[in-house]
Amino acid sequence: MNDLMQKIVSLAKRRGFIFPSSEIYGGFSSCYDYGPLGVELKNNIKRAWWQNMVWSRADVVGLDSSILMSPKIWEASGHLSAGFADELVECKACHKRFRKDHVETPTCPECGGEFTAPKKFNLMMKTYAGVTEDESNLAYLRAETAQGIYVNFKNIVDTMRVKIPFGVAQIGKAFRNEITPGNFIFRTREFEQMEMQFFINPQPDKKGKTVKQWFEYWKKERMKWYKGHGINARNLQFRKHKKDELAHYAKAAEDIEYNYPFSSGGGSASGGGWGELEGIHDRGDWDLSNHAKHSGEDLTYFDEGANKKYIPNIIETSAGADRSTLVFLLDAYQEEEVKGEKRVVLKFHPKIAPIKIAVLPLVKNKPKLVKFARRVYEDLIDTFPVMYDEVGSIGRRYRRQDEIGTPYALTIDFESLEKYTVTLRDRDSMKQTRHKVAELQDLLQDKLGG
Amino acid sequence: MNDLMQKIVSLAKRRGFIFPSSEIYGGFSSCYDYGPLGVELKNNIKRAWWQNMVWSRADVVGLDSSILMSPKIWEASGHLSAGFADELVECKACHKRFRKDHVETPTCPECGGEFTAPKKFNLMMKTYAGVTEDESNLAYLRAETAQGIYVNFKNIVDTMRVKIPFGVAQIGKAFRNEITPGNFIFRTREFEQMEMQFFINPQPDKKGKTVKQWFEYWKKERMKWYKGHGINARNLQFRKHKKDELAHYAKAAEDIEYNYPFSSGGGSASGGGWGELEGIHDRGDWDLSNHAKHSGEDLTYFDEGANKKYIPNIIETSAGADRSTLVFLLDAYQEEEVKGEKRVVLKFHPKIAPIKIAVLPLVKNKPKLVKFARRVYEDLIDTFPVMYDEVGSIGRRYRRQDEIGTPYALTIDFESLEKYTVTLRDRDSMKQTRHKVAELQDLLQDKLGG
Repeated sequence: MNDLMQKIVSLAKRRGFIFPSSEIYGGFSSCYDYGPLGVELKNNIKRAWWQNMVWSRADVVGLDSSILMSPKIWEASGHLSAGFADELVECKACHKRFRKDHVETPTCPECGGEFTAPKKFNLMMKTYAGVTEDESNLAYLRAETAQGIYVNFKNIVDTMRVKIPFGVAQIGKAFRNEITPGNFIFRTREFEQMEMQFFINPQPDKKGKTVKQWFEYWKKERMKWYKGHGINARNLQFRKHKKDELAHYAKAAEDIEYNYPFSSGGGSASGGGWGELEGIHDRGDWDLSNHAKHSGEDLTYFDEGANKKYIPNIIETSAGADRSTLVFLLDAYQEEEVKGEKRVVLKFHPKIAPIKIAVLPLVKNKPKLVKFARRVYEDLIDTFPVMYDEVGSIGRRYRRQDEIGTPYALTIDFESLEKYTVTLRDRDSMKQTRHKVAELQDLLQDKLGG
Repeated sequence: MNDLMQKIVSLAKRRGFIFPSSEIYGGFSSCYDYGPLGVELKNNIKRAWWQNMVWSRADVVGLDSSILMSPKIWEASGHLSAGFADELVECKACHKRFRKDHVETPTCPECGGEFTAPKKFNLMMKTYAGVTEDESNLAYLRAETAQGIYVNFKNIVDTMRVKIPFGVAQIGKAFRNEITPGNFIFRTREFEQMEMQFFINPQPDKKGKTVKQWFEYWKKERMKWYKGHGINARNLQFRKHKKDELAHYAKAAEDIEYNYPFSSGGGSASGGGWGELEGIHDRGDWDLSNHAKHSGEDLTYFDEGANKKYIPNIIETSAGADRSTLVFLLDAYQEEEVKGEKRVVLKFHPKIAPIKIAVLPLVKNKPKLVKFARRVYEDLIDTFPVMYDEVGSIGRRYRRQDEIGTPYALTIDFESLEKYTVTLRDRDSMKQTRHKVAELQDLLQDKLGG
């Protein structure tokens, strides 16, 4: 593993961001648990996405559909077909299985045995919902949240007074039986998606806006979101899918790529560490036409403005919450030399930082000073995620907060007791300024934003 | 189904709160999808719980562990044993299966055939994580979030500088292959939990606080939370589990019960519609002792204050996010007679209400007035979840907002244009007051709270 990745994996574990799942039992299948800081980080990312995609827009509503859905949905969507599968070979002697494009010899690398003919291995994970393990109770863990949106299109149009163009956004878990999960939380079998489906007129609308223009609009919006939340523009680029890369349902697809410290594989990377962070897709009318055909429901939309019926065209933005978390961690990581010592700092955007403020009494053995610090802490705790820390020298405590990306530290010193003030230290500049306690709430609200 | 339940199910569907899953394909297995208003309602409940349990406390941290975990965890916890199972019988003739305590005759009610001997049916849902469907890749969908907390106890102690007494809170999906799901979102196979595990000294601590006192403390805290978020005290009660009801790991258990409009069954209800809303459990040291034994890891805790090592005692608070959503809907529902007409209103606590403010231009055919209203809307949308509605008479629009529980409606009328004011209508009192536009942000912030 690359040096930076090793540092991130180690810091993530050491500081309570991300633990390997089931660790005391030897781990499990590339699954990860978000620790106390990780859950706040990931929730901040999800909330920032939701705020940007749903709350701050009049034309997008939210949804939270179930993980278990009718298998008919996956038949209709094509997820149970050969298209959503990898090719596997099995050794006739030792019965080990391999992904065909991962074996370089015609015989088994484990025992030298002969391989069976390659067969398709579907990526959907199966289970049974009901008392018998038979066809009638067969269910799948959803492989993407998008299908939950398509099958609710009619319900949403019928109940929410939405008018095209409008979108439906959803955050939720999905599962894929990846043969080669890896690179920490970059590719895991259990993962969380942040997807938005935008329904538009396939013809230029009243304002003359075309499908192509909406596609470009959403590309820009999504790129702006990453940059607006602190991801370095140098590490982001668009990559257009070539015709032969496009999925059967896609008319156009473009990735927002990040410059990872590893090669993410997949054959479609544009070289070096560039790999997918988010996909923006023009799915045409494939999804709704297809579900209309398979379900027998009329999924046409009557457009009052255009005075006609049509099956809407869909522009999809599809991001991963776990992959975004990895990118926010990687991009925030910096090592600096300060007074001859190495400082490790996560330069998170304040909105993304898991802890916003640290409250630090200069010393812990002066009851008056500690009591003052506790009161400052208690006053802030209902408004901001705050951490109180009194253990170790003040310098070490600053470093600990730097390492978890806390934007501001408030130190309570002896002058505090006399003048009812605290010092505020800025994580990035490390500059300290002194402020009246009475003004803290407003000051921090300004700095941390709404 | 009871009258009130029918009204809630119908309103939930009609107004975009909750849809049956996979509906265009005929539905699926008691699964439900949260629509545009439902996802906001449920997220508000989850956020209010998290704010109360994690952010506003110095002694509880969060966690988000994976749904797929090592099967060894479920062996250790007892979930794969007979204790977490129902008894099934199968007809030898037609091979239909029934829950044993649901059949009243010794022969099959479908075909009159003879039954097999009863056998245990485990409630955990299986899947395979990996390329072969064999023992080595067998995995389970977690049946509770709690186990993810226990197996991370050591990681959290090692990385977060937490000291006993402290808690770990988690929100996430869990799955149980219930034979008899039902009552809408009261009991479903896929559901979301809000669980907190509080780790304490099994002996009275430095302040003399006992396990029993902590148990009482958490009972009160959790009851206060429901009441503080608007649930009517008359519909809430405690019910102590009798000795013979206690699970093998529990030393004491008490439910917070709600007075549902249906009998929730389970045999342990205290009569009428009273049924479980949340459980508070004294789990002793069963969980950590057991995982220490099965994993071989040392899960003792060194208590500096007491200067000794011990396996902590656990007090658990276990609530359901879906069940809570049902309770918040049921409890908020009111029918009132207003000027000879029926008004249906969801009297949600403002923190729980999916939409906080409606912006309503008195008429939609006066461009100046509409433009004014749009500006009021745009000014609020970054701070609050706001809905803009210009369709229908103002009276009908108020009723629509009442029915989805919006606490405040701002109406823009002709006087607005002259005096730069709006009227603010209170959902519950239906009283209207006039306010300057410039004062709206502060006024609404005050009313809606932080």
